[in-house]
Amino acid sequence: MNTAYEQLCGLAKEAALVESVEALLGWDERTYLPEAAGDYRAEQMTFLSGLAHQKRTQPKWGELLDELAGSDLAKDLHSDTGTTIRQLKRDYDKRVKLPQLLVEELTRASVLGQQAWVKARAANDFAMFQPHLTKIIELKRQQAEAVGYEDQPYDALLDDYEPQARTKDLTSVLGKLRQELVPLVHAIMESGKVAPVEIVSRLHPRGAQEAFGKTAAAAIGFEFQRGRLDVTHHPFCTELGPNDCRITTRYDEHHFNGAFFGILHEAGHGIYDQGLRSELFGLPPGQFVSLGIHESQSRMWENLVGRSNAFWQYFFPKWQEFFPVAAEGVTQQQLFAAINHVQPSLIRVEADEATYNLHIIVRFELEQALLSGDLPVNDLPAAWMEKYREYLGIAPPNDANGCLQDVHWSAALFGYFPTYSLGNLYASQLFEQADKDLGGLNDLMKRGEFLQLKLWLNEKIHRHGQCYSASELVQRITGKPLGSEPLMRHLRGKLLPLYGLA
Amino acid sequence: MNTAYEQLCGLAKEAALVESVEALLGWDERTYLPEAAGDYRAEQMTFLSGLAHQKRTQPKWGELLDELAGSDLAKDLHSDTGTTIRQLKRDYDKRVKLPQLLVEELTRASVLGQQAWVKARAANDFAMFQPHLTKIIELKRQQAEAVGYEDQPYDALLDDYEPQARTKDLTSVLGKLRQELVPLVHAIMESGKVAPVEIVSRLHPRGAQEAFGKTAAAAIGFEFQRGRLDVTHHPFCTELGPNDCRITTRYDEHHFNGAFFGILHEAGHGIYDQGLRSELFGLPPGQFVSLGIHESQSRMWENLVGRSNAFWQYFFPKWQEFFPVAAEGVTQQQLFAAINHVQPSLIRVEADEATYNLHIIVRFELEQALLSGDLPVNDLPAAWMEKYREYLGIAPPNDANGCLQDVHWSAALFGYFPTYSLGNLYASQLFEQADKDLGGLNDLMKRGEFLQLKLWLNEKIHRHGQCYSASELVQRITGKPLGSEPLMRHLRGKLLPLYGLA
Repeated sequence: MNTAYEQLCGLAKEAALVESVEALLGWDERTYLPEAAGDYRAEQMTFLSGLAHQKRTQPKWGELLDELAGSDLAKDLHSDTGTTIRQLKRDYDKRVKLPQLLVEELTRASVLGQQAWVKARAANDFAMFQPHLTKIIELKRQQAEAVGYEDQPYDALLDDYEPQARTKDLTSVLGKLRQELVPLVHAIMESGKVAPVEIVSRLHPRGAQEAFGKTAAAAIGFEFQRGRLDVTHHPFCTELGPNDCRITTRYDEHHFNGAFFGILHEAGHGIYDQGLRSELFGLPPGQFVSLGIHESQSRMWENLVGRSNAFWQYFFPKWQEFFPVAAEGVTQQQLFAAINHVQPSLIRVEADEATYNLHIIVRFELEQALLSGDLPVNDLPAAWMEKYREYLGIAPPNDANGCLQDVHWSAALFGYFPTYSLGNLYASQLFEQADKDLGGLNDLMKRGEFLQLKLWLNEKIHRHGQCYSASELVQRITGKPLGSEPLMRHLRGKLLPLYGLA
Repeated sequence: MNTAYEQLCGLAKEAALVESVEALLGWDERTYLPEAAGDYRAEQMTFLSGLAHQKRTQPKWGELLDELAGSDLAKDLHSDTGTTIRQLKRDYDKRVKLPQLLVEELTRASVLGQQAWVKARAANDFAMFQPHLTKIIELKRQQAEAVGYEDQPYDALLDDYEPQARTKDLTSVLGKLRQELVPLVHAIMESGKVAPVEIVSRLHPRGAQEAFGKTAAAAIGFEFQRGRLDVTHHPFCTELGPNDCRITTRYDEHHFNGAFFGILHEAGHGIYDQGLRSELFGLPPGQFVSLGIHESQSRMWENLVGRSNAFWQYFFPKWQEFFPVAAEGVTQQQLFAAINHVQPSLIRVEADEATYNLHIIVRFELEQALLSGDLPVNDLPAAWMEKYREYLGIAPPNDANGCLQDVHWSAALFGYFPTYSLGNLYASQLFEQADKDLGGLNDLMKRGEFLQLKLWLNEKIHRHGQCYSASELVQRITGKPLGSEPLMRHLRGKLLPLYGLA
């Protein structure tokens, strides 16, 4: 007879197995699914997601958790057993608090919302989407009330993506970041210096982009015997099992940055997944801790490593080999300047490293105002334009390139956006510490040695899974709570010299 | 409240949905799965196959079938409702007759058997495999007794692949076939004529093979918006949903035939799957009727169409375009002769159209003797060599290329082999009828018109699913029971002139 703890782990692993199959269906849908097969795929995924939910809310789960709550196994909160019990209880409690009817209404509103959003964006007509958004916000308010919160309703939603984070802390750190970013971007614009961006839009043949991207992903530590790279429309990374991590990209032969930094970004996510303890797959100590920390891993490899001068001291000769035509007459410094070009623009997913967080801050502020009711839904388009003008100095000519550009709100994802900026903030703070601990990352990167940083991340972050919360992790590793200074130091350190402002 | 019939269909469709997900896992395993991910994939597949089995043996299923057995819906055996009730009952009865313990023992013996077979083949050591084979045969005898049979135990096993077929009928038709094939192959060997096979081993670049293969598959009617072509080690076709049929191949740049006829073969399977009524996916009238009929569809497009002179009158200029270097100095007649080369060889999967069935007949005779006990397992290697000498005029130098060459017996698949020859026999008999009904297929094929044949197959075979058994179908369509004459007429008609024997 298995102990209660073994039974609980068995249930959790079985639920994770069902979810991993659903993840394969999702991966296939976004990479290889034949055009006409979408309807049945939706049926398959609905079935599996229902099965997983059923497994994660079965009463047996609650009984075992009750039995284990006061046990010795639960005592050390940061041990594997303590983490398993604590986190499974957290998840179970949240799930059973949500009325079945609300879950179904949210699913339906999100499906209809996304369909309406696609049409509204194509027609550049916010009014078509407005009633759906109103409904979704109302349901998200109900969700927050059902789940409960200490401080404010937005906390309850944020918790789905960044467990235990608090809105007030985020508001403080992102507020400070904005105050420093806005003048930095302004100064760069005023500098009159323009990067030679034409280089990255020269022809970079697709086959060479794929080969070069895979070389770089392998060099930074993505293990291809435990993963793959495929092509998709909207790149993502997904974990299909303890030794099966799939990353994706898309190629534009006249835009080198898209696929290359996209591959480094997704490989960064993948290195996190591959660094989790595989024998604990499906249990909280073997699972990623938060979307913010996940994003910190992708942004670190993409930006702090991949867009650094040191990285290109090593990779520039290889870039010349893979792209001899595009490389004609280009110096390493020119390429470095081109891939670090700063320019306020309207579309988040195309934004550079400096302005990206301003896009996020706009959304973070607006979605809180929508949820609280301070911003009526029909005032959203005007409020969006106003904030873009204030923070980025430009305003969209229409809603399609304004408040209709992202899928998130139509999919009922409120509280998701700030995790992107959290990722950038965590990445910089962790990278500074790694630099200190490893005695200078620049020297390592110049020589193409990325293994030390990967092992540092394995040891400091990946292997802990959910044993510590995101903020506990950062405090433990860096000795400080999350702040905006490391990111600002990084941006100023790189961009001021590039734009002749140092 | 749903009627009993609706409930039954709901259960069947849900079971089929689970199986379709398992099929995706299997497809992915054989095409894209990362090297290290095999163990967890096995866990995922085991879980799903258990879930499907559980769904197909739940008592509710039996209760609904009992309730529906005497109903009006069951009366017309060939209607969709009658077929659904009859076939689901047939499947349910067979499943519940098998003791759970036997099912588990068979699964285990098959897994261990395949592992031992891989090693035994590599080591060319039949003794390593012998105890496993002995065990598997013993379990297959138990299976036959548990399920029951009218005439002989082999019938019960055959029924898993070719429902309602009888060993004695098969023995008769394959016996006649052998009597005519052996002298035909002998005469070809004696003719002294050798086909210019060197042509097909000239360099055919992989990219051009893929493009040419897809062009041909689309031309004969495989719908790529409802399917895909990918690369694998051991080519197969799998149906992942009503609009999702995946075919696979492998490329050898110095063997044109492998991928090209492989693609036509798998596309033939795919055209059958795509021709099933998609709204009945998961129900017997929307499912293929037998492996023999499935194989008849692949062999028809591969051999009767793809290896015909008329097909190449249309495709030869395209072949020249796709492979200008290989085509240098080659006439259409030379290519036609090269792709129809006859030569007795040791390996079934590499056999030509004429000798292929002799490989099958050897296996069909031996597996019956093994099952009945007439052939002791340790006499198998010698008996194998003896039959190859008698039917094909050559004998393998060792067991690796002899009785250890196929995976089937190690996987507990007894009764499967004859469906390959049934496929060839059905294909010829159906093709003769189509030729009559459509007023001459050669003229159509010469002009690249394949749609008429595809529509004929859709109408005569595909759309009926399991409404008629395989032998009922053939009788209905051709007015005769299955015979060996059409296949022999086809082979003689093509090969005698090619080898100067006409």
